[in-house]
Amino acid sequence: MDNRQIVLAERPVGSVSGSTTSVVTAPRPECGEGEALIKVAMLSIDPTIRTWMDDAPGYLPPIQIGDVIRGSGAGVVVESRSDYYHEGDFVFGMTGWQEWVLATDDRRFSVIPSGLGLDLATVMNVLGVTGITAYFGMTDVGAVREGDVVVVSGAAGATGSVAGQIAKTRGARVIGIAGGAEKCVEVVQRYGFDECLDYREDHLTTRLRTACPEGIDLYFDNVGGEILDAVLATLALNARIVLCGAISQYNVSGPRHGIEHTSALITRRARMEGFLVLDYEKRFAEAQGALATMVLSGQLHHQEHVVVGLEHAPDALNLLFSGGNHGKTLVAVDETVQLG
Amino acid sequence: MDNRQIVLAERPVGSVSGSTTSVVTAPRPECGEGEALIKVAMLSIDPTIRTWMDDAPGYLPPIQIGDVIRGSGAGVVVESRSDYYHEGDFVFGMTGWQEWVLATDDRRFSVIPSGLGLDLATVMNVLGVTGITAYFGMTDVGAVREGDVVVVSGAAGATGSVAGQIAKTRGARVIGIAGGAEKCVEVVQRYGFDECLDYREDHLTTRLRTACPEGIDLYFDNVGGEILDAVLATLALNARIVLCGAISQYNVSGPRHGIEHTSALITRRARMEGFLVLDYEKRFAEAQGALATMVLSGQLHHQEHVVVGLEHAPDALNLLFSGGNHGKTLVAVDETVQLG
Repeated sequence: MDNRQIVLAERPVGSVSGSTTSVVTAPRPECGEGEALIKVAMLSIDPTIRTWMDDAPGYLPPIQIGDVIRGSGAGVVVESRSDYYHEGDFVFGMTGWQEWVLATDDRRFSVIPSGLGLDLATVMNVLGVTGITAYFGMTDVGAVREGDVVVVSGAAGATGSVAGQIAKTRGARVIGIAGGAEKCVEVVQRYGFDECLDYREDHLTTRLRTACPEGIDLYFDNVGGEILDAVLATLALNARIVLCGAISQYNVSGPRHGIEHTSALITRRARMEGFLVLDYEKRFAEAQGALATMVLSGQLHHQEHVVVGLEHAPDALNLLFSGGNHGKTLVAVDETVQLG
Repeated sequence: MDNRQIVLAERPVGSVSGSTTSVVTAPRPECGEGEALIKVAMLSIDPTIRTWMDDAPGYLPPIQIGDVIRGSGAGVVVESRSDYYHEGDFVFGMTGWQEWVLATDDRRFSVIPSGLGLDLATVMNVLGVTGITAYFGMTDVGAVREGDVVVVSGAAGATGSVAGQIAKTRGARVIGIAGGAEKCVEVVQRYGFDECLDYREDHLTTRLRTACPEGIDLYFDNVGGEILDAVLATLALNARIVLCGAISQYNVSGPRHGIEHTSALITRRARMEGFLVLDYEKRFAEAQGALATMVLSGQLHHQEHVVVGLEHAPDALNLLFSGGNHGKTLVAVDETVQLG
């Protein structure tokens, strides 16, 4: 039986193009002693995947030419010769962009509990890395408090929309930043932010100042670049800036935007801190419990944008950068697999 | 009796020039009920004074045209109608660039304890704002730990040289960055840093990597700009960056250097935090006690660069930017006044 895979054919300059990846067919892997064979059902499409395609130092090594594109996904165990996995288990982990993958000692998956009453797309969005990132970024790194003025960029995106809703439940006033009027309406109406600013319109710094006359206490940054600079110019005293991502810079092939207002960190006695959700792995269950409770009680609104077909994964990745997606972008590799 | 003062005549573009300030003569202030009259002995020349000359938002309002230049200094109480100050007391506070100043309810001074066995220049350097800034930046904001690889820029400067020596006493390996071979020798031989890199030579990033093969755990930044960028490219996991100042940018009249490597804060899970020593006022005595102990036990080497004459204060300020000073820059306004 075959295993269709998407591999890196050449390093992209700017956006991923038709020649960046190719579809190849490998034999389906054989399940060895202590291993489990997983049929991949759905891929999580995350901006960070784009950074791994560059030959540049990062928190993980670059994907090598010819390698399967690295990425997380979920699937079902169809054969197990391991004590840990059982046939029929739904699992989540680094599947890569392919139809079949082996769970080995070096490549571990977490088992998704059954009976959650949520579909696979919701689980992969809110209880997956996206929701968990929003949770730890807002509660731990940002230490959101009642009365904070919170700004979230990428507010219509998967992580931003969850981050803002968590801040609302903690009693903060939350202002989103998103691209385009339609997304701004969505951020306020669907996700319940107090306000949302369209970064594609002029004078973002001035509008931020109007929206936050006492300054910004907490900024959850998904985009970097000019928007980060505009926020730095509008900080309250002792502000916290949580660096979650810098999507505005990932596709830039020339010089990146240099941040001009770092000295505001001195005058405002502010702290800017980056984090990776991988470092919180031991506490994932805590976040998932809190997030599941919010979803089931109707406090957390979410949206998934499912692209069907493994071969469309590269286009799905580009949607994150063009803003063409709504909510969490996922690729359905096998639509017949449904979470029980 | 007259009070010679230096006032802001026009806002500087770039460095302070001959037309930035003028010397004016005002009447000596009269000591009212509850007030004390101070004869200014010595001024502390600090890079931050340059930032107050710009018409730009900062942590204090800009100096207005015609106002006496704001700055700290020390002097002796010659007349007191206050219960707090006594004739003959040595005091420290915001004297401004002038010969006489009144201590009022709105303008308070701290009394320098007598019998320290240190001269006034040493007290103004190590036990003044300069030393206290180094102390809280390194111990509190940076939370220096045994075994840390610490980098300090402006290492031959007043704050940097003290910051590095504090890190050494805590068991860190300390690498300085300074301008020119002579200063680098001074940083290693006089101040006992393990190594010092000359930023005027090429390939600073490469040399930082060689000096810190495991990355930088703690960076104490006095300069900002390109050197901050080079350090960000060389961070260890969970690094702390303490932003104390950005002297490389204060005299820049065009666009300032944009920091390109902020996304390293994400991949290295690092924290960048600014601070102002003013926020630590209630704990100054703690720092002064620790610093005095270090000086008296020979653990803290220091150097003062005293320029004689109030009228030379603007030139003394420029020395900080040209690198023409060695150690702490002070202006002697009245050389006859000596700390008992």
